[in-house]
Amino acid sequence: MGADDLNLKLKADLDLSERLFAGLMDFSRDPPGLTRAAYGEGEQHAHELMRGAGLSLGLRCDIDAAGNMFLTLPGRDPSLPAWMVGSHVDTVPHGGNFDGAAGVIGGLAAVSGLRRAGIVPRRSVTVAVFRAEESTWFPASYIGSRAAFGLLPAEVLDLPRADSGLRLRTHMTQLGLQPDAVATGVAHLSPARIHGFIELHIEQGPVLDAQAIPVGLVTGIAGSFRYRQAVCHGTWGHSGAVARAYRHDAVFAMADLITGLDALWAEIDAEGQRATITVGEFSTDSRLHAFAKVPGEVRFCLDVRSESVAILARIEHRLGEFVAAIEAKRGVRFKLGDRTGSTPAVLSSALRDTLAAHALRLGIPYQAFASGAGHDTAVFANQGVPSMMVFIRNQNGSHNPDEQMRMEDFHAAATLLTHLLADDDA
Amino acid sequence: MGADDLNLKLKADLDLSERLFAGLMDFSRDPPGLTRAAYGEGEQHAHELMRGAGLSLGLRCDIDAAGNMFLTLPGRDPSLPAWMVGSHVDTVPHGGNFDGAAGVIGGLAAVSGLRRAGIVPRRSVTVAVFRAEESTWFPASYIGSRAAFGLLPAEVLDLPRADSGLRLRTHMTQLGLQPDAVATGVAHLSPARIHGFIELHIEQGPVLDAQAIPVGLVTGIAGSFRYRQAVCHGTWGHSGAVARAYRHDAVFAMADLITGLDALWAEIDAEGQRATITVGEFSTDSRLHAFAKVPGEVRFCLDVRSESVAILARIEHRLGEFVAAIEAKRGVRFKLGDRTGSTPAVLSSALRDTLAAHALRLGIPYQAFASGAGHDTAVFANQGVPSMMVFIRNQNGSHNPDEQMRMEDFHAAATLLTHLLADDDA
Repeated sequence: MGADDLNLKLKADLDLSERLFAGLMDFSRDPPGLTRAAYGEGEQHAHELMRGAGLSLGLRCDIDAAGNMFLTLPGRDPSLPAWMVGSHVDTVPHGGNFDGAAGVIGGLAAVSGLRRAGIVPRRSVTVAVFRAEESTWFPASYIGSRAAFGLLPAEVLDLPRADSGLRLRTHMTQLGLQPDAVATGVAHLSPARIHGFIELHIEQGPVLDAQAIPVGLVTGIAGSFRYRQAVCHGTWGHSGAVARAYRHDAVFAMADLITGLDALWAEIDAEGQRATITVGEFSTDSRLHAFAKVPGEVRFCLDVRSESVAILARIEHRLGEFVAAIEAKRGVRFKLGDRTGSTPAVLSSALRDTLAAHALRLGIPYQAFASGAGHDTAVFANQGVPSMMVFIRNQNGSHNPDEQMRMEDFHAAATLLTHLLADDDA
Repeated sequence: MGADDLNLKLKADLDLSERLFAGLMDFSRDPPGLTRAAYGEGEQHAHELMRGAGLSLGLRCDIDAAGNMFLTLPGRDPSLPAWMVGSHVDTVPHGGNFDGAAGVIGGLAAVSGLRRAGIVPRRSVTVAVFRAEESTWFPASYIGSRAAFGLLPAEVLDLPRADSGLRLRTHMTQLGLQPDAVATGVAHLSPARIHGFIELHIEQGPVLDAQAIPVGLVTGIAGSFRYRQAVCHGTWGHSGAVARAYRHDAVFAMADLITGLDALWAEIDAEGQRATITVGEFSTDSRLHAFAKVPGEVRFCLDVRSESVAILARIEHRLGEFVAAIEAKRGVRFKLGDRTGSTPAVLSSALRDTLAAHALRLGIPYQAFASGAGHDTAVFANQGVPSMMVFIRNQNGSHNPDEQMRMEDFHAAATLLTHLLADDDA
């Protein structure tokens, strides 16, 4: 069917969704909030819950070497590249129930909606349940989705999990998975066989809630550069006895740096460009600092994100200038330490236009903007798969026990997805 | 004798000084550096060492209810108000040998110098050895010197010592002292009976060393205001997902505050006024912060000092304006918490002029400037006693194991003191 023929009554399966969210919550409680450790009991239980739901819907179940699960509804023409929808079901420790899970349950609810309406779509639809998206467990991004494409570097398998101390490889083996196959780069997915990838996800920020809009269509996923263990070295001194001219104050130097970055950010914002600049950790040394001492050292981290490679480069260039100027002015020394980073992902404007047309037809208000946070979608986009994210309005952010999402907003987003999958012309 | 008659060969006793510094070091070692706890074994041992030296010089020894010791050389006219010189002998934990002790040993070396030269000064000279000047042990300033004037608030006796947890009162009793008399305000010293108070002390800052000048004549002792447990409350958020317009970033707010205070300080400095502004402790919450989180809270302390009451008031007024403006701009909230402070002490310009004249005659280069740190001298000055401090050039600051002082600089300062005490016209 084309978009014009789709019945406005076609909806995602709300009952199934509520049952699955409640089922997840049951075994994840870990007050405050809930926890589903990557490659741990919670994530495994969640995979089994989704598998059961998929099998009840008559979907085919495939599990790859890394434990990613793919639940497929065959289309009228299985030879065509298929739609893929989904997300992850692990959480951060003491997180909420919706970050990740909404994307998987949204996919199952859409497939169930199609079936209830008696619609067999032209293309097959696969609901993907990825492993280990939250990098709090293993210090690496997108472990599951990268492994699905055979892209996970073998050394990641030797990283220890933050809570257990056991290697990723060991956790995989305990679950009966095949870390050696992952290490050799066996690929379960082929970009050419995927028509498009769509991930539903709670927004994680306050933009939709502040503007009273239920759904966001994402224009791109920010890339980043990060210094997680930076230091500013000054000189310790007596707070009363060291005059202004003789100070090498690490805290004042950091204030200069942050004020400089803030002014640059304001400038970028005024140009209508998007970036975020965050100094999430900032501490004088608790063993050495005192109220009556000029601080001689600050440890800090810096996280800069933008969907634009050029903006990232501009901020990093200016960061270098700020550091050199502050070192010269204050007689301090910065050691930024190891740099990590990721490349911005450009999402499909064609898919976005199609989704926007369905939203208009269905009377679902939406807003287009970029995602500052990283998601499995970035892996698909960077593999050349036309990819999109649909954000769901939420409250209280994410990665915390107070995470919230209204079921009516979730239902609007999942219904939008259902109409896309039913649209033979999309 | 008047200044013109004084023999240029009159000098402080360097041998005695070296013996006393070495003697102190012997029982104070506590690597790194050395420790003499207030009302503890180290301070008590130091008092006994000084007592022995004073008795060897034929000085009269008086000990007051709080354990301050006064070693007196009677003058030719004991009815006249006497000179008082001295300092304290406690140290911070793992501090150096010179902060405090140089003032006591300098006084004994001066008296010994007078005796060796056969000079009996017109006025009696008392070398004072005060208790508990370092406020790291009990959270109160100038415990010994305030008690000597009957000025110590009784509640200070109930403060616990940081290391032992025992009250000041208990430590006094263990040493055979009279805390109850201290509590009732018994005064051993009377301002009217003191002609002038002079304290030799290492500078603690780098000014004299940087300018290659051995001696400083102090113009005043800074007063202060302090917030030791201040907090800036913002809102935690996802570092990628919360856009600039929606942030309430506690670290960025603090950068605004510090940058504002820094600009104000530069303005005050350019006017030739003196102040110090220090944020010695600054920390995001290590249980909640993360590189990928907008920081929702910063704990910090603020220490502002100046010898000018007007400058302190100006900085505190502007602090209030900065806080209000930043709260409005960033949607954060500051809680500065309890305020403590002290009043600046004005030192005697007449005494300074007399010392400057002797320094000129003796060929000792000096520079006049204010003390940013507090000292027992402040108690004397605020009691109306004409008071002065003589700073001795030092290296590596104070309150640390690397504290340094050259004996030739110490000897110049102590000799300057010897000449003042021998000067019948002073």
